[in-house]
Amino acid sequence: MSANPTAAILIIGDEILSGRTIDTNVNTIAKFLSVLGVDLMEVRMVHDDEAQIIASVNAVRDVYDYVFTTGGIGPTHDDITADCIAKAFDVQISEHPAALKLLVDRATKMGWELNENSRRMARIPHGAELIMNPVSAAPGFQLGNVFVMAGVPKIMTAMLEDVAPRLRTGRQVLSRTLKLSYVGESWAADVLRDIDSRYPDLSLGSYPYGLLPGEFGTHLVVRGQDERSLDAATSELISRLEPIVAETQLRQPLAALEEV
Amino acid sequence: MSANPTAAILIIGDEILSGRTIDTNVNTIAKFLSVLGVDLMEVRMVHDDEAQIIASVNAVRDVYDYVFTTGGIGPTHDDITADCIAKAFDVQISEHPAALKLLVDRATKMGWELNENSRRMARIPHGAELIMNPVSAAPGFQLGNVFVMAGVPKIMTAMLEDVAPRLRTGRQVLSRTLKLSYVGESWAADVLRDIDSRYPDLSLGSYPYGLLPGEFGTHLVVRGQDERSLDAATSELISRLEPIVAETQLRQPLAALEEV
Repeated sequence: MSANPTAAILIIGDEILSGRTIDTNVNTIAKFLSVLGVDLMEVRMVHDDEAQIIASVNAVRDVYDYVFTTGGIGPTHDDITADCIAKAFDVQISEHPAALKLLVDRATKMGWELNENSRRMARIPHGAELIMNPVSAAPGFQLGNVFVMAGVPKIMTAMLEDVAPRLRTGRQVLSRTLKLSYVGESWAADVLRDIDSRYPDLSLGSYPYGLLPGEFGTHLVVRGQDERSLDAATSELISRLEPIVAETQLRQPLAALEEV
Repeated sequence: MSANPTAAILIIGDEILSGRTIDTNVNTIAKFLSVLGVDLMEVRMVHDDEAQIIASVNAVRDVYDYVFTTGGIGPTHDDITADCIAKAFDVQISEHPAALKLLVDRATKMGWELNENSRRMARIPHGAELIMNPVSAAPGFQLGNVFVMAGVPKIMTAMLEDVAPRLRTGRQVLSRTLKLSYVGESWAADVLRDIDSRYPDLSLGSYPYGLLPGEFGTHLVVRGQDERSLDAATSELISRLEPIVAETQLRQPLAALEEV
């Protein structure tokens, strides 16, 4: 559909795979990339396991333009991401003076003592550029096309602000959404398939919502970069679905179609 | 840590990667597997793209004991999962009589006509066993060690009931969680690291919560299969953290430690 830059996300953390924590970072990064016209192609979630992290990051960093990792850059023994990234790139890792200064300044400001464990968060792979953390100071870093960020959602989200200007952007993928109430998606499928095949620059999706016996229906989403094409396909979709809705209304008066 | 069966999840759908939809199926399946003693090792999220689905399912089905896919088994043009799984296993796909009967019976009961698009949902790869869908009838299927389920969370969750008895189970991973209030994780890091290294059958995790200047602290999670070992490590953790909490209380009276 596009010549946009491509990206993958690598979510690192036992707490996600154990079910203890529900990941929200994928969705935050997906929306962030969508606005910038960077196409998110793949997500992987792995354990705090050195071999798995190294294999995963190496599997995706050669294939996609950008890789975003979250998790594992704190001060405890299970925070092994920075070391793994260094190994994946075969570079050394050591205390980064600017990163240390950020931690020391923060500790001073808060009236804390910077202990040895917190100090570990200043260890950065050689050749990496820091990613600022306005929330709690401990920085992430960018090494090549890999952006290493915190797992805590508020910190990760704040770090994206510092990441954005470094990305090559593409054409944003726009979308139109139609809500087809009380009509199952199978009744719209022929029209959808036909329009999808005749607009090769667009992608059409169909997502059922609700479940009988309550409210139910289908969200139809048209996605693409060209607004004119998007409008044309959406208009055609509406005009061809209207008779289907009218027919459905004979047995289901609540059937309706609206753009949402 | 265990000789439990292993598993991967494959989340299929443009709507997840575009950011339109927040996935909740990973967390549901993760918790489901945790109770059964099946170790979730990896998650991948991919587009509604034939090559990507086939490559991903083949990458994980040889490595792990079980693979769970969600999404792409509805009636519309973007529902290509069943065909992709057939191609990944190099088997034919055609209308499955029992699957068709489920769809016809449901349509009859609801007073519907089963249209050609809905009928596509009866196409099942050869050699597969159906997975029952008590919510909306259209079945999932199991082919070899791959369980193909719906993307709609309510349906996916209901399908897990039919999947559970087919899985070889392991020893459930138990956990104890301590809440360390108003103490940053770096202060607990030495104790955690030491206990983690001395209990090789357990895994210790540290997860900061909250952010200054409001409430903050750390959840410490001890995981393992052996309850006695878990209790011993948790007791040791508590007794070694108590002096740290006491010291912190001198400058932060709210510092506390409790099992939650």
